[in-house]
Amino acid sequence: MTGRTACRRVTQILADQGQASERADLLAAEEPLGIRISGQAVCMTMRTPGEDVDLTAGFLFSEGFISCAADIASIRICDGTKCGHDHDAGDAMGNFADVTVRPGLPVQPKRQRNFLTSSACGVCGKTSIDELLVPGRFDLFEDQVRVTADVLAGLPDGLRRAQRVFARTGGLHAAGLFTAEGELLVIREDVGRHNAVDKVVGWALRAGRLPLRRCVLVVSGRASFELAQKAVLAGIPVLAAVSAPSSLAAELADEAGLTLAGFVRGGSMNVYTGPQRISV
Amino acid sequence: MTGRTACRRVTQILADQGQASERADLLAAEEPLGIRISGQAVCMTMRTPGEDVDLTAGFLFSEGFISCAADIASIRICDGTKCGHDHDAGDAMGNFADVTVRPGLPVQPKRQRNFLTSSACGVCGKTSIDELLVPGRFDLFEDQVRVTADVLAGLPDGLRRAQRVFARTGGLHAAGLFTAEGELLVIREDVGRHNAVDKVVGWALRAGRLPLRRCVLVVSGRASFELAQKAVLAGIPVLAAVSAPSSLAAELADEAGLTLAGFVRGGSMNVYTGPQRISV
Repeated sequence: MTGRTACRRVTQILADQGQASERADLLAAEEPLGIRISGQAVCMTMRTPGEDVDLTAGFLFSEGFISCAADIASIRICDGTKCGHDHDAGDAMGNFADVTVRPGLPVQPKRQRNFLTSSACGVCGKTSIDELLVPGRFDLFEDQVRVTADVLAGLPDGLRRAQRVFARTGGLHAAGLFTAEGELLVIREDVGRHNAVDKVVGWALRAGRLPLRRCVLVVSGRASFELAQKAVLAGIPVLAAVSAPSSLAAELADEAGLTLAGFVRGGSMNVYTGPQRISV
Repeated sequence: MTGRTACRRVTQILADQGQASERADLLAAEEPLGIRISGQAVCMTMRTPGEDVDLTAGFLFSEGFISCAADIASIRICDGTKCGHDHDAGDAMGNFADVTVRPGLPVQPKRQRNFLTSSACGVCGKTSIDELLVPGRFDLFEDQVRVTADVLAGLPDGLRRAQRVFARTGGLHAAGLFTAEGELLVIREDVGRHNAVDKVVGWALRAGRLPLRRCVLVVSGRASFELAQKAVLAGIPVLAAVSAPSSLAAELADEAGLTLAGFVRGGSMNVYTGPQRISV
């Protein structure tokens, strides 16, 4: 099974009416993707299949394995036994991503950790923000983009309207990249919110669009440290979350010059850092 | 900073009214917790400080490092330089958990993975559900508990009412353990939903309550494969999620005999597996 949704029989119960009925239901697909560099396993992520080449590229960039598209020689999505699809076959299906990097590039992340990508994971033996950080190449302080509060307030609705799989399953996080004028550039969905952002960043990396100056990244849920870091690394000056940010996300945003808005919903928002980029 | 919340200045913008004002806001704290066994780093999780001994015990159990409370000799929460608190000091603060296991217990997880605990992570080089699974000790099929749909439908409200930190920050996932009659046994909150469940399971492990027969685990968000697996390992027969389950969570629940309900809200629910435990 490598589709984006899976069909199951479900018993729908209306407790107050004492009714139960069976029907078919679509679930968001969740499957493991193993990422290997030159045959060496570096990570397994539980993800929704689709855009796996982007996900792999974005993950390797966010973890500091690579710093530009040219560092990747090829990414092949395969089923673990025989590789039949190459880098350009973005829709190839399989649960392994076999990566070849350019000759001479050491296979080393820029930070010493177990290559964990989620809010449940981090860095072994490190405590300060500086040590948790993957060193980035782009200076967000230089990006003097301004976004109107009206445009920013409308982006979560734009994201939701573009969520095709969510509409059918209710089970996916989304990340969307917008221009400062509110135009949607790309949207990606995944059971893991970090994967959704990695898919967006991987898409931009492969399209030669990094740094993502003057762009706004919108996420459908909360803003964790890891999501803020992915935005900073990709050179995105504004991160807007539909729900709350964490304390560490706000601290990182402050230090890195990232504008961080949370609770962006219903025409209002809380701006935690970098309010000068938002004009009211 | 090792509290559960952090205070920040925030600019609140009402876009449609063209208003911006400054005020203080509470954010859910997010900090790394490094888990070490006999000085060896096994994981770093980004978590909300608090109940770190439970979190550590639950993580080690869910990952298969330990299979009962007696496998743990001590868990000390410390600041990484000097350890001053022991196993019983559950409120000790610090960003490291130093674990000693009972003599003779090998420090090996039961599955070969990078000790990743989130929906963004999994198992290197494995593809089938069987290989993703941590082998469990408890047989859920034997648990013939029945829960009324009325009781089940009311549990998410009970969870929300008990969420003290969420009420102040809007930024935390919760996991709550209830009896089949709807009595709340324990609730835990965390920026990471997997951590919230690990805290619940760790609490039960340390209290000698495993397996959690006839109990219902309620989670505030979606039900992923990893959360379903944590429920199965702890011997919990019913998992209820406020939002959607993933395909792999439903497949695992089916195979393990776990009753999985999703979209439990507003008096209705979808039951994906094990509907015989829910009486309408």
